[in-house]
Amino acid sequence: MQTQPLTIRMHDKDNVAIVANDGGLPAGTVLPNGLVLKDRVPQGHKVALVDLPRGQAVLRYGVPIGYALEDIASGSWVHERLLDMPAARGLEDLPISTEKAAPLPPLEGYTFEGYRNPDGSVGTRNILAITQTVQCVAGVTEFAVQRIKAELLPRYPNVDDVVALEHGYGCGVAIDVPDAIVPIRTLRNISLNPNFGGEVMMVSLGCEKLQPERLLPPGSLPVVGQRGGVQGDAKPSVVCLQDDSHTGFMSMVASIMRQAETHLERLNARRRETVPASELVVGVQCGGSDAFSGVTANPAVGFCTDLLVRAGASVMFSEVTEVRDGIAQLTARASTPEVAQGMIREMAWYDAYLKRGGADRSANTTPGNKKGGLSNIVEKAMGSIVKSGSAPISGVLSPGEKLKTKGLTYAATPASDFICGTLQLAAGMNLHVFTTGRGTPYGLAAVPVIKVATRSDLARRWHDLMDVNAGTIADGSASIEEVGWELFRFMLDVASGRKKTWAEQWKLHNALVLFNPAPVT
Amino acid sequence: MQTQPLTIRMHDKDNVAIVANDGGLPAGTVLPNGLVLKDRVPQGHKVALVDLPRGQAVLRYGVPIGYALEDIASGSWVHERLLDMPAARGLEDLPISTEKAAPLPPLEGYTFEGYRNPDGSVGTRNILAITQTVQCVAGVTEFAVQRIKAELLPRYPNVDDVVALEHGYGCGVAIDVPDAIVPIRTLRNISLNPNFGGEVMMVSLGCEKLQPERLLPPGSLPVVGQRGGVQGDAKPSVVCLQDDSHTGFMSMVASIMRQAETHLERLNARRRETVPASELVVGVQCGGSDAFSGVTANPAVGFCTDLLVRAGASVMFSEVTEVRDGIAQLTARASTPEVAQGMIREMAWYDAYLKRGGADRSANTTPGNKKGGLSNIVEKAMGSIVKSGSAPISGVLSPGEKLKTKGLTYAATPASDFICGTLQLAAGMNLHVFTTGRGTPYGLAAVPVIKVATRSDLARRWHDLMDVNAGTIADGSASIEEVGWELFRFMLDVASGRKKTWAEQWKLHNALVLFNPAPVT
Ligand SMILES: [Ca+2]
Ligand SMILES: [Ca+2]
Ligand SMILES: [Ca+2]
Ligand SMILES: [Ca+2]
Ligand SMILES: [Ca+2]
Repeated sequence: MQTQPLTIRMHDKDNVAIVANDGGLPAGTVLPNGLVLKDRVPQGHKVALVDLPRGQAVLRYGVPIGYALEDIASGSWVHERLLDMPAARGLEDLPISTEKAAPLPPLEGYTFEGYRNPDGSVGTRNILAITQTVQCVAGVTEFAVQRIKAELLPRYPNVDDVVALEHGYGCGVAIDVPDAIVPIRTLRNISLNPNFGGEVMMVSLGCEKLQPERLLPPGSLPVVGQRGGVQGDAKPSVVCLQDDSHTGFMSMVASIMRQAETHLERLNARRRETVPASELVVGVQCGGSDAFSGVTANPAVGFCTDLLVRAGASVMFSEVTEVRDGIAQLTARASTPEVAQGMIREMAWYDAYLKRGGADRSANTTPGNKKGGLSNIVEKAMGSIVKSGSAPISGVLSPGEKLKTKGLTYAATPASDFICGTLQLAAGMNLHVFTTGRGTPYGLAAVPVIKVATRSDLARRWHDLMDVNAGTIADGSASIEEVGWELFRFMLDVASGRKKTWAEQWKLHNALVLFNPAPVT
Repeated sequence: MQTQPLTIRMHDKDNVAIVANDGGLPAGTVLPNGLVLKDRVPQGHKVALVDLPRGQAVLRYGVPIGYALEDIASGSWVHERLLDMPAARGLEDLPISTEKAAPLPPLEGYTFEGYRNPDGSVGTRNILAITQTVQCVAGVTEFAVQRIKAELLPRYPNVDDVVALEHGYGCGVAIDVPDAIVPIRTLRNISLNPNFGGEVMMVSLGCEKLQPERLLPPGSLPVVGQRGGVQGDAKPSVVCLQDDSHTGFMSMVASIMRQAETHLERLNARRRETVPASELVVGVQCGGSDAFSGVTANPAVGFCTDLLVRAGASVMFSEVTEVRDGIAQLTARASTPEVAQGMIREMAWYDAYLKRGGADRSANTTPGNKKGGLSNIVEKAMGSIVKSGSAPISGVLSPGEKLKTKGLTYAATPASDFICGTLQLAAGMNLHVFTTGRGTPYGLAAVPVIKVATRSDLARRWHDLMDVNAGTIADGSASIEEVGWELFRFMLDVASGRKKTWAEQWKLHNALVLFNPAPVT
């Protein structure tokens, strides 16, 4: 595509830039600034802009992503074997809420068509969810779901889908140790996702450790005034397979279908209404990252994050090991010292969790990251954090907790795409934005996943899997702001059901994968 | 059903017995030996046969399952709140291979109809497995599997099914810490399960941590002489979604379908042949246990385990936390000191794993266990171990390892039904036996699961989910030996494809749930 050599430098201080051209650039290429490449530099990989003597800090995003292990001449390919990774920033003496930027100007007048729920939240889809206490019941539930889809769903055209919330938890686990709260509240809060309209039903085995009242304690379902006139004590519908009333497999299936029909009727009566953009609860994430993630897609998402915050919406960014090296930026951006301390607490917890298992944050990076030009976790983190834009960070969530505030929140989760997505679902996300450089067909059954490609080449080849192309930023054919606005408008269309994501189109549904830091038994 | 009061005592030394009658027995009931019940005793629960002064050992299976916390009068209900649980037996000074019983007499002439594989193993089903390096590809693979089932499978009538080996591992994990070997070898060895005939194919994303050659290193697939005449370097067929050759979603689906067709053709050409019963590789497990598990179903399975060992077959029993309290019995039964040391090593590893997470073996028991009469993990363990019968223990496997020997093996796994089943699949099981008292509809896509009910009441109500009723042993209408033989014959029928299990009938497929003791990132 590009005939001119094209490199991207992120910060004035940077002494490296990345090569943007498809296929990289050969040795001998003369860059517009006169620099001659000494090596072939693959696309997304770094070139030294000046001589970097051994021990010199290699700067990207204005920060040291490593120290030269040998003398690196200007014009050389700076790959990961030439860099000594810095140690993780300690969690003491961090700048706390020091960044006092002027508040972002409000953005008004943007709306979408959503399903208003009894608890005030808003769904972007209208889905019957069947939550489960334990993996044991997954086979029976799946059998019932197939029949519900075939026999009942066609009669309830306003209901988008029936989704079984299958998972690998619920029994054979140490359920009384402190860390067990993480998977338990994750499952509970997923059941309360706004896209399920408070109409969740439950299938239980009977003898499992995660009993129905532990999964959804009385009072955890929102008040449903219409539900038989009862206010304040809405109880979930539970089908218990071991119940004495069940004789034979088909009686279990019939119980599930009967309960489903009640909920389908109520869900079917719901209609979309115009609501302000502030009702969006967006989880942003990256996966299959390359060096363009932090240059194109993540900055565009960051710009869009600012738009969402300005519109009064909720945005979560996550992935502990991918922000760990930027903790000083984050604590500085915290709106209050409590928020800063909350982020430090989450980082310290995760540091200890990894250490217990013999690992540290550097276990994050993948073969694909390195192939894509990301030398180490520091460089990856700097490119990951930009998804959070520039707004003050006004909230912190522990893994599996439910979001209760607007604005920009740091929702602590592992960086694992499917675990992060599962935890953001639990936090109450009604729209997911996912950037990818190497490419992933990731999707969720419960919430639309908008996928943003970091490179035009990926967007072209995966034309029916990528929803937005941020590669135009590297091509020079669009600005970060333009792609950010395109994404923002697409989000309102998807949230309204006017447009579907590609993952929805093909029904690509990844599994819920729980974060369980506690032992199994 | 029973009109006479019926109690079951397991060992001459026992000072408690359990009530067998449906619905339990009311206070005032006079037992055949003249003892009068002081309390109502629920079915499966214990009655004191003599006065048990405070501090007295309460004996079941001839061992102390606890110590009386207060004076318990003879005829009283001995429930879990009256028992102080003994500490776990230390792992020092255990009896090592001390039990020198006469070898069991060989059992000859039993056969089944199985699929002989290139590596010498035998399948009980003929299944196309699509293994996956990472959760990211699960949605695309599932889409392709639906199309393969609809469009290709009908043309290959000798192939039983197409199964996607979906899992939550592969990326976002600390893959280089020592404990990561457990999930990796589990996935590898599941791909090599005998029911897949060495024809496994693989879907990879491209940038994931678990690269195809790490999941299935060269040489891990069996030699396939027929496969293009190539001996010794059979490589798995890998579809890599990020491959440059893919343009658009449908090209990925087409790649998977094309690979599938090659394998379907070869699988379809296979025929069952008569093989000795020694080719069975049976995993035994219990789940949803009650006090009858250790009285009816597990002893019948234990008898059948002896039949299988006598026939030269392979049998695995598992569930670390459910045998931990019986470690002295197991080390005594070890055929060699190495096997005894292997079991001690597995127990020590699991003790440390649980301790690191703030738990111990007592975290195993469930609300259903206690409701069903099992006071604590010691009592549960004594009833669980009897599945292993009386043969010498001649092998030990660490979690996820592949079984290479005949006879009785202790395959160390968590007790979690789905995790244990997943690990026994990895060990190479071609038939699964699962006993249950409370009832579970558990099933697997890869291997038939025979479910054995501990009580006639459960077998009656779950008549189309339970394959064998061992409750007849408590009713007095069949002996342990009779049910053991019935199970053995049923196993040969199921292994031969002459009979289907109920879980197969309804296609009840639980998820693969990996044991990952390492951190996620
Ligand atoms: Ca990421
Ligand atoms: Ca991620
Ligand atoms: Ca068990
Ligand atoms: Ca079990
Ligand atoms: Ca599934």
